[in-house]
Amino acid sequence: MNVTIRGRSRHHRTVSFDATTNSVVLIEQRLLPHEFELVKTRNFRETAAAISDMVVRGAGAIGATAAYGLAQGAVAFRGRDLARFEAHVETVYQTLKHARPTAVDPVNAMNSIRAEMATGTSVDESQAIAFAAAARFADEDAEHCRALGEHGAPLIREGMRVLTHCNAGWLAFVDIGTATAPLYAAQAAGRKFHVFCDETRPRCQGASLTAWELAQQGISHQVIADNAAGFLMSRGEIDLVIVGSDRVLGKTGEVANKIGTYTKAVLAHRHRIPFYVAIPMSTIDWELGSGLEIPIEDRSGDEVLGAWGVLPGTKDKPGRRAYVRIASPTSTARNPGFDVTPPELITGIITPAGIFKPKELKKLRKKARP
Amino acid sequence: MNVTIRGRSRHHRTVSFDATTNSVVLIEQRLLPHEFELVKTRNFRETAAAISDMVVRGAGAIGATAAYGLAQGAVAFRGRDLARFEAHVETVYQTLKHARPTAVDPVNAMNSIRAEMATGTSVDESQAIAFAAAARFADEDAEHCRALGEHGAPLIREGMRVLTHCNAGWLAFVDIGTATAPLYAAQAAGRKFHVFCDETRPRCQGASLTAWELAQQGISHQVIADNAAGFLMSRGEIDLVIVGSDRVLGKTGEVANKIGTYTKAVLAHRHRIPFYVAIPMSTIDWELGSGLEIPIEDRSGDEVLGAWGVLPGTKDKPGRRAYVRIASPTSTARNPGFDVTPPELITGIITPAGIFKPKELKKLRKKARP
Repeated sequence: MNVTIRGRSRHHRTVSFDATTNSVVLIEQRLLPHEFELVKTRNFRETAAAISDMVVRGAGAIGATAAYGLAQGAVAFRGRDLARFEAHVETVYQTLKHARPTAVDPVNAMNSIRAEMATGTSVDESQAIAFAAAARFADEDAEHCRALGEHGAPLIREGMRVLTHCNAGWLAFVDIGTATAPLYAAQAAGRKFHVFCDETRPRCQGASLTAWELAQQGISHQVIADNAAGFLMSRGEIDLVIVGSDRVLGKTGEVANKIGTYTKAVLAHRHRIPFYVAIPMSTIDWELGSGLEIPIEDRSGDEVLGAWGVLPGTKDKPGRRAYVRIASPTSTARNPGFDVTPPELITGIITPAGIFKPKELKKLRKKARP
Repeated sequence: MNVTIRGRSRHHRTVSFDATTNSVVLIEQRLLPHEFELVKTRNFRETAAAISDMVVRGAGAIGATAAYGLAQGAVAFRGRDLARFEAHVETVYQTLKHARPTAVDPVNAMNSIRAEMATGTSVDESQAIAFAAAARFADEDAEHCRALGEHGAPLIREGMRVLTHCNAGWLAFVDIGTATAPLYAAQAAGRKFHVFCDETRPRCQGASLTAWELAQQGISHQVIADNAAGFLMSRGEIDLVIVGSDRVLGKTGEVANKIGTYTKAVLAHRHRIPFYVAIPMSTIDWELGSGLEIPIEDRSGDEVLGAWGVLPGTKDKPGRRAYVRIASPTSTARNPGFDVTPPELITGIITPAGIFKPKELKKLRKKARP
């Protein structure tokens, strides 16, 4: 995407690779939205640390980072002994896998790279395959997002007011994003519209990341408190809702996403406002048979009891990052991280293969696994 | 209510009067929930400043503060000339009235005090009447809250999980509060229950004030993000919702309250969870014929773009209060302060005169104005 750095507009993917220095290049997401900085990891251990330390986050983005990290580690090997090379690659794999143990995307990404590498007959050949496969994996992530953007773009008509929740933007993927992809495609087609970004307490990814992305792209937007969407809908000020998802059940059409998504779906249903979920194919879970089986992470109460932001800075220097305690000092919090939206509240699922009713997702399985 | 100050438990109303020093005694609400401090205003100008500077807030609380401020100003007059006394009282009245020009409670409170003072035939007599009338006004505010608490208490059964939004507690009134009154009465009756406090972005009165009140009273509670209530309802973890209100339309049964209230009513309705609104009689508006006529304040976007809290402190000293910017630096916000809930989503309105269906409020008008 086009990103302005100190007054210059540049094109940056969330995750990319610098072959001349064998480095993975990442947008340092912990500094956003207050500072934009690119970081390079010089070896696979630094790449693993970037994942575990949340320099990079988001399903597609950490998948691509692990893919590049595996290639980076493989390419760094010196020697011609294939057995020693494979032992080295296993170390790289395990190191990257354990950087975010609960995530499935890094594992899936690295497995696909390794399957291709196995066709190599020498260290040199396997190294070349690893690099090419990682680059193709990242390109495909961006291409899937671009394709779903094309399918979703016709939903965004001139002058519409669109609500989104959390960040399913290009920062969570290699590029373009999912919930944001139809917006960027509609903008490219010359249409004007306005986006309301739910701030998305407690971690505020809507206020920080989504609003920042939209600002970079020059899309008209405002942040709203999560409490405000119901009022705006009741006054006819929202025409469409698009969100991303962490897991969609292919068998039932249920959608797990950031806490608060279900509430917006209930409100949209009451006000007959279309409610869409945008996902790549990798988000579909073909195994689980009920949304009640989806594990809902109970996160730290500190996220709810306070907030992270920056203190007032000067003209030249942004203020330092700080956590302020908002809640009563002795009170505790309950902090479920996700909720589940049933299919009857969802107008459609936007995918790289087209838009489907939640109950029609089964068709995709036949395509995906003939 | 019982408030613990540095380890000692004391009984404190939000607003009271110290006759020996002719001072109004207020809980300094701007320091809550991180510090508890009582402040005394020594004359009516300091009392007016306490209202305008938000030392005291909440409909019932600022009404009582203005009532005491009027008496305080009247009692401070030296002399026997009734005409000069009345001119002085007019100055006091105007000063207190302009401390919060959009509020109706201070005006209503002071008008009732002045009507009684008019029966006095000397300065001395009018001064005595003013003080007695102000004290009675404050007592009645507390008594109304106590009565609605008694009516609402049977709704809170053993083991229930109750959701509340914003702060309609004793800090917003002279004592006891409205949405909290049934909780305190049920506790006094020996029942155990658990309260989920919506944090209530953007000003977080639920996380700060309501959670603090409940902690003082020893009531089991947790703060939740406003996004979380829908999930908890979907998992059967909320049994009852009670909120306060800024204005209830007697003609239609519509309820204006803090932004986000409508959303909780929609969710409760979907999950067949009882949704109650607790109010004193003074909150009923008998004039307006539609919720669309209720002015909805568009507040500063800074409230949504960041948050107020305290920085980490030491064991002996709480951290200083600070505002952190959460949102993207160039993004703006939309910040409606209130929303309107239609009567079909409301199970009942809890008042000092009993519990009524929203459409039955008309009965109260006949009682109130025979």
